[in-house]
Amino acid sequence: MLKVKQVTIIGTGLLGASLALALRAKGYRGRLVGVGRREQTLEQARGLGCFDGLTTSIAEALDGARDLPSDQEHLAVLAAPLGHFKEIFEKIAERDDDQLIVTDVGSTKASVCKLAKALLPDASRFIGSHPMAGSEQHGPMAADAGLFEGKPCVVTPQAGTDAQAVKLVKSMWSCVGMRLVRMSPAEHDKAVAVVSHLPHAVAVLLVILAKGAGGSGGGEALGIASTGFADTTRIAAGDPGLWEDIFENNKDAVAGSVDQMIEALQRFRWTLQDEDGPGMLKLLEEARRTRDGWAVASKGR
Amino acid sequence: MLKVKQVTIIGTGLLGASLALALRAKGYRGRLVGVGRREQTLEQARGLGCFDGLTTSIAEALDGARDLPSDQEHLAVLAAPLGHFKEIFEKIAERDDDQLIVTDVGSTKASVCKLAKALLPDASRFIGSHPMAGSEQHGPMAADAGLFEGKPCVVTPQAGTDAQAVKLVKSMWSCVGMRLVRMSPAEHDKAVAVVSHLPHAVAVLLVILAKGAGGSGGGEALGIASTGFADTTRIAAGDPGLWEDIFENNKDAVAGSVDQMIEALQRFRWTLQDEDGPGMLKLLEEARRTRDGWAVASKGR
Repeated sequence: MLKVKQVTIIGTGLLGASLALALRAKGYRGRLVGVGRREQTLEQARGLGCFDGLTTSIAEALDGARDLPSDQEHLAVLAAPLGHFKEIFEKIAERDDDQLIVTDVGSTKASVCKLAKALLPDASRFIGSHPMAGSEQHGPMAADAGLFEGKPCVVTPQAGTDAQAVKLVKSMWSCVGMRLVRMSPAEHDKAVAVVSHLPHAVAVLLVILAKGAGGSGGGEALGIASTGFADTTRIAAGDPGLWEDIFENNKDAVAGSVDQMIEALQRFRWTLQDEDGPGMLKLLEEARRTRDGWAVASKGR
Repeated sequence: MLKVKQVTIIGTGLLGASLALALRAKGYRGRLVGVGRREQTLEQARGLGCFDGLTTSIAEALDGARDLPSDQEHLAVLAAPLGHFKEIFEKIAERDDDQLIVTDVGSTKASVCKLAKALLPDASRFIGSHPMAGSEQHGPMAADAGLFEGKPCVVTPQAGTDAQAVKLVKSMWSCVGMRLVRMSPAEHDKAVAVVSHLPHAVAVLLVILAKGAGGSGGGEALGIASTGFADTTRIAAGDPGLWEDIFENNKDAVAGSVDQMIEALQRFRWTLQDEDGPGMLKLLEEARRTRDGWAVASKGR
């Protein structure tokens, strides 16, 4: 069980609000404070009934924790879009609180860890996290206490990261049911470029190509699209602003995986032209074997 | 309601068996005969309880219908893999039955229509169909009476196709809940290349790239793959033999859409490098708008 005097969740969208619900559902008993930018979002978060406090002021949330009479630590979780991280780290840096431990849910890690190191007075108390859970929905109304259950969470402690900080951040993600995977920020960014950012880019481009393929406004091709199209493009309905930030923050690794996909498509095209070769069947069989194996392994864990 | 004396379904896999279940569920009262290649598949199809007859002999199934004392037509549906179509058309051509109307469920249409024209004695009684329904599962055990409900079905009658044949084939697909879309075989093949075959190719390549990205055997990257990867790659678990046939039969259109995807990825890469331009956000917004619009339209119809 997670033992900290307060968890401050900065950003009460889908991930932040789901984290709050999940912590309560798993029996976390400390204070739970949410920080949001807009009154409307805070109002929706209030409706979830799991926050002890909700405010638009990061300073107020952090000061409230500092003034709590307890020798336990205080955990702040950045669950806002990546584009807001700089401002949030600056606000945190204005506070002087040696009980404060900071983590985040950002989809890229090298840029976030660099920012934390540059801006926080004690970067050894920051650990990057990336809970690999989400949905194409957003906002507190879409919050789900089971969102994290059984999913992987990458944590990226570095040389010099405080041991107690690592322990508590891992404890929080374990508490909500996540399976922890330790990586360096660079390893993480390369891996998610391939299994998350490239699939997103491809889903977006499949939608754009299908739209362009129609007669008047894509009606023709889109009009006969079915289950396979629905599955492969579901994530293209994700929040454009969030994804702009993600691509911007992981530009090099994403560009690398886009190049890999271009090469893979060129090879696929050659295989397609090579009528009698065994290449196509072998490729399709390897993909099925790998996909089936992955599905079993991710359920089994 | 569909009024024919017999529906012969050649191929009792997922699609064929689901069609049989769906016809019965919708109240079709004529004879329903299934033809399969393997005794095991026929045994599983028998377990569904919806076929009046099951046999490994196309000739036997067709002769049985011809000998029924009725002035209604007989509908034969090719629901086998595309690679078996030539042999099946040849078997059908050996029979002389002017009550027989033929259609298919093949995922490509130009090559199938060409084959029908070349092999059938009266090609005006053949109409190509492509029910856009399926799943990564296969075999009669995965059959689902609701598989076709609300999904699009492309029919490709041509100049000279018999009017009564068109009427009955459309009647069958409407009967199981499908929304009919009329296209030429070439239009169909171009459209499915974009909304079905390209998504499949991309899903396969995403799995292969993710596998290759890991340390030992892909564990690293695949180990943190989550919901987005699951959705975008689900179809990569589809039957390799079926998909080899589909790619082979729609090679030119697939190659064209692969080229479009390569160009789209190159443009995406430029947009990624152009730090301050509005290009990425605009692209993501267009994709979301299109995807959301498509989802509403496909549910609404």
